[in-house]
Amino acid sequence: MLTLVQAVERLLAADKILLLCHKNPDGDTVGSASALLHALRAKGKTVGIACSDPIPSRYDHMQVTAFAGEFEPAYIVAVDVAGLQLFGPGTIDWAQKSNLCIDHHASHSHYADGLVLDGTAAACAEIVYKLLLEMDVEITPLIADCLYTGIATDTGCFKFANVTPDTHKIAAELMERGAHHTKLNAKLFESKSRSQLAVERQLLKNMEFYYEGRCALTWLTLDDIAATGAQPVDLESTTGIARAIEGVMVGITMRQQPSGSWKISVRAAEAMDASTIATAFGGGGHRGAAGCEVFGGLENAKQALLAEVARNLPTEDELGGEYDE
Amino acid sequence: MLTLVQAVERLLAADKILLLCHKNPDGDTVGSASALLHALRAKGKTVGIACSDPIPSRYDHMQVTAFAGEFEPAYIVAVDVAGLQLFGPGTIDWAQKSNLCIDHHASHSHYADGLVLDGTAAACAEIVYKLLLEMDVEITPLIADCLYTGIATDTGCFKFANVTPDTHKIAAELMERGAHHTKLNAKLFESKSRSQLAVERQLLKNMEFYYEGRCALTWLTLDDIAATGAQPVDLESTTGIARAIEGVMVGITMRQQPSGSWKISVRAAEAMDASTIATAFGGGGHRGAAGCEVFGGLENAKQALLAEVARNLPTEDELGGEYDE
Repeated sequence: MLTLVQAVERLLAADKILLLCHKNPDGDTVGSASALLHALRAKGKTVGIACSDPIPSRYDHMQVTAFAGEFEPAYIVAVDVAGLQLFGPGTIDWAQKSNLCIDHHASHSHYADGLVLDGTAAACAEIVYKLLLEMDVEITPLIADCLYTGIATDTGCFKFANVTPDTHKIAAELMERGAHHTKLNAKLFESKSRSQLAVERQLLKNMEFYYEGRCALTWLTLDDIAATGAQPVDLESTTGIARAIEGVMVGITMRQQPSGSWKISVRAAEAMDASTIATAFGGGGHRGAAGCEVFGGLENAKQALLAEVARNLPTEDELGGEYDE
Repeated sequence: MLTLVQAVERLLAADKILLLCHKNPDGDTVGSASALLHALRAKGKTVGIACSDPIPSRYDHMQVTAFAGEFEPAYIVAVDVAGLQLFGPGTIDWAQKSNLCIDHHASHSHYADGLVLDGTAAACAEIVYKLLLEMDVEITPLIADCLYTGIATDTGCFKFANVTPDTHKIAAELMERGAHHTKLNAKLFESKSRSQLAVERQLLKNMEFYYEGRCALTWLTLDDIAATGAQPVDLESTTGIARAIEGVMVGITMRQQPSGSWKISVRAAEAMDASTIATAFGGGGHRGAAGCEVFGGLENAKQALLAEVARNLPTEDELGGEYDE
C-alpha cells in the first residue's frame, strides 16, 4: 500500500499516462479519472482515459474523450476498479500491466504494482481529491465538478449509508472551489429518459402487494421491455421502485430474459435479508440488494418467489421498535 | 435584528417557552423547533411545541408531542415562519404575541419583538445549530437527528440550489455528533405511500408530450383523485414528475377541483420561466415553479395552456450552449 505522498511522487515521475475506468462506467470512475487527467495535464503530462464502454453523455461536462492511441502508454493507472474482471475487453490488456491503482473498494484484489486504497471513502473521488491536494495542483472549477460528480453519484446525492463526515467536508470544499452543484444535481438526479419513464409506468401498472403490504412484486415481460424501447441501463435504475413504498419490507422485480427465464432483483428493508431469498434460487448478493434467476412461467415463478418471501418475513416479535438503535 | 448571542441570552432568561411551527409543517420547522425544545429542556426550561396542523408521523423520530396546555406560555418563539399568514387558526393568537423569531426566509415580515434571520441559510436548522453552539448545550444524537432532518428535507437531501458549503459542513458536524443519516434518509426520501404511488401511476398513464418533447403535460380528474385515495400532501409531492424528464423544458400538471376548474402546476427548466405562463392565467410564482387556475373542460384547458407554452418556448438561438455558465 502506498501513501498519498508516494503515489503523487510516482505520478509526477511518470509521463504518457493512461488512466483506466471500469466497464459500464459510472460517475465515480469517470469523475475520478477525469479529475486526475485535468490535474496531470496542468502538470505538463501527456494523459489519456480509456474505458471498455463508451462514456455516457450525462458525463459530457467532465470534458474528456476516450483514448484513441494518441500516444504509447508508459504508465497505467486504474481508477475505481476493484479487480481485473471489471475492465472488459477494450482495456484488459493495459490493465494487466497496471502500475498504480486508486480505489475505495475494500474488496480490491491487489492486481497492480502500487495501490492507494481507502475502504472507508464513500467514493474514489474523495481519495483523488486528497491526492490532488498533496500534488499541489490547482483544483479548478472543472476538476471540482469532476470530483463532485464522483461523490454525488456514488452516494445517491449524500443519501446512502456510505456517506461519512469527510464526504460532506469534501463536498463543502469542492463547492468553495467552484463546483456547479445545482447544474450537476439537476443533470445527474432530476432527469429521467423517456424510456426510463415508460419502464416505470409499466412496473407501477404490474405492481402487486402481498402479505399485508410487506412484499411488493412487479415484473416486465419481454413484450413489456420491447414496448418501452428501454436499454439495460434504463432497467437497472428502476429495481428500487418496489422496495421504496411505505410498509414494504421486500421488493421484487422480475425481468423476462430472451431465453424465457426471469432475472430477479430482490431489495430488502433493514428487518430482512435479500440475499437469503436470492440464495434459495442459486443467486446471491448483499443484505439490502440481491439477485437470482428463476425459470418457468410468470405465475409459477411468482409463486415460488412469494413462498420464499413468506419463509423469511420477520415475526411481529422480531420487528419490535422500528426506530431503535 | 439580534445576534445569536443576544438571542441565546433572551432564551436563557425566559421560561415556559412555547415554540411555534408553521402550518402544513415540514421537516425544517419541526426539526428546528424540536432541536430547540430538547436543548432548552436540557437547560431546565419548561418548553412546548405548537402547530395548527398535526405533526406528520414521518417526524416521530424527533420525539415531540403537540402542546396541550400543560403550562401558561410566557415566552413565544416562532421557528421557520416567514409571516403571520403562515401560522393557521390553531396558533395565530400566540403568534401575534411572538417574542422571538428564528428564520431563514429573506422575505420575513418582522412580526415579532426580536428576530434572528439568515437569508443565506438553506434551512432554519442551520441557524438553530449555530444558536445551540452559542448556548453551550450538548448536541445529543437526538438533537443532531432533528437538525439533520431540517437540513435534509429543505435541501432535497443536499440536491437543491440553496445548498452552501456551510450546509455540508454542518451536516458533517451533525454526523460526528451522532445523527443517524442512513435511517433518516431512508425514512425521509426512500419511502412513498401507497396513495402517492397510485397518483404517480395515474400521472404517468395520462402523460402527453408536445413540441418535440419540450413540454410534458399530465392531469388528474376528480375521478382519478378519488380512485387513488390520495390526500392533498400526496398530490403536492408529485408536481415535479412531468418536468423531471429528459428534454422537457416545461412540465404541466393539471388537477381538477371540486368546483370543476383545474388547479395548474407549472414547472420549468432554466431556459424557461414558469411564472410567465401562470401569470397569463392570473396566477403567479417563481421562475422554476408557478401555479394558476384554469376553467373549462379538460380539452379546452389543455389547449389554452399549450398555446401559452408555445408562446414561451425558447428559440434555438436562445437555447445556445446548454452547460455554459
